[in-house]
Amino acid sequence: MCELFAMSALIPTRVRFSFGIFSRRGGHTGDHTDGWGVALFDGLDCRLLREPMPAAESSCAKYLAAHHIRSNLVISHIRKATGGLPISLANTHPFEREVNGSRIVFAHRGQFAGIHEDPAFSLGIDRPIGQTDSEYAFCHLLRGIRHGGVLDAQRLKPQLDALRARGVANIVLSDGRQLIAYADKDMHLLRRHCPRVSEDDIHDLGGVTFGGFCGDQDVVLIASVPLTDEAAWEELPPGTLVVAKHGVVVELLR
Amino acid sequence: MCELFAMSALIPTRVRFSFGIFSRRGGHTGDHTDGWGVALFDGLDCRLLREPMPAAESSCAKYLAAHHIRSNLVISHIRKATGGLPISLANTHPFEREVNGSRIVFAHRGQFAGIHEDPAFSLGIDRPIGQTDSEYAFCHLLRGIRHGGVLDAQRLKPQLDALRARGVANIVLSDGRQLIAYADKDMHLLRRHCPRVSEDDIHDLGGVTFGGFCGDQDVVLIASVPLTDEAAWEELPPGTLVVAKHGVVVELLR
Repeated sequence: MCELFAMSALIPTRVRFSFGIFSRRGGHTGDHTDGWGVALFDGLDCRLLREPMPAAESSCAKYLAAHHIRSNLVISHIRKATGGLPISLANTHPFEREVNGSRIVFAHRGQFAGIHEDPAFSLGIDRPIGQTDSEYAFCHLLRGIRHGGVLDAQRLKPQLDALRARGVANIVLSDGRQLIAYADKDMHLLRRHCPRVSEDDIHDLGGVTFGGFCGDQDVVLIASVPLTDEAAWEELPPGTLVVAKHGVVVELLR
Repeated sequence: MCELFAMSALIPTRVRFSFGIFSRRGGHTGDHTDGWGVALFDGLDCRLLREPMPAAESSCAKYLAAHHIRSNLVISHIRKATGGLPISLANTHPFEREVNGSRIVFAHRGQFAGIHEDPAFSLGIDRPIGQTDSEYAFCHLLRGIRHGGVLDAQRLKPQLDALRARGVANIVLSDGRQLIAYADKDMHLLRRHCPRVSEDDIHDLGGVTFGGFCGDQDVVLIASVPLTDEAAWEELPPGTLVVAKHGVVVELLR
């Protein structure tokens, strides 16, 4: 099964990734993954780094582990290929599309077997580049997002509920302004307030290290597997939708 | 002025970039650029690496200079910000959109002052994320590309001619299957056949090094400034459109 991770922070922070730790938390070593990807928002655009290979073999993942890239909204995914699909760049999360001048980024943990043939999940103008049911489901969601004009959690929830009824739908997505997380099975939330941090403080959240900011920091983390042993990780009940902005949960729909 | 570079090759090859050399050829040092970006196709999807900072200061550009990423279709751009626009990720080339399941990548050298207000260059569903006239012109071209359903050079040329009449339009774009280059001022073409190369041969093309392939290789390079001193670089007359596939020029429209 794939691993999902997402972060919303008040102050843009230097984020460093260690995919080895993510993978181990998910019960497999970094050698046994089929791809990994990270979207790091910078304003309304984002850096999207992906590789269709184990992070342990990827020079790009090593680069990410060695460097800090500044962001306050991050979505990450580790892929374990299922259903005989090819291991390719086009099948590697996160996926992204532009809607109305906003970059929409999407990652998914679960599956929607046969969704390609289901008329209830038809597509609009957005079409998959790869073969995953995840990207197909994203393109289906985009139809509704384009219809509404913007990414809106209230409007999106019925579509996400329908996807959950159709398969397994742990989903994170963002337009750079807000982080939306939708829980099916195994989605966890951690809220953390870090008062009066200094530029030199490094915060280790188990696979993600961040620092390089001054002042009061707020952080919301979403993860399929809790990254630390803290009891503060809340397991989200199936069907829960969380909206985070600037490191704070602003909406929680059940 | 910005620098453009693109490559089409028969055999996917390990490409290594040295932005310092690109910048010097363009008459400025790597310290005096406002951003750089590279799209490396891998099948129908691509890796898109961009940074809104001088390549000389970018750890990501250093990573690219140190590692070989395999690709047979590459588009690259070095940005010098003009018109008082912010130096931001969203204003950094190349730009990309998905059309009909294809990733379309675009980079531009020139300007189209006031194009945002010109009703002759209206937009369809694709909207700019940043503020550049380049991305705006790309979104305008996408309207025609979506109308035709695919990226087609014959259909595209009148649109490109209209852009050239409106400003300065040195443009490269690709859907992963073909490389299209459109010349206004200062666009150059190099065709090279490399017979019976071995895995260990390294080919240095002045800022781009490639190797790691066996057999007969064909390469087409497009550059705003010739990367080497070879006389074989052809200056493309204004209005020329070149289509390259698998390292060979397959169409040349004037």
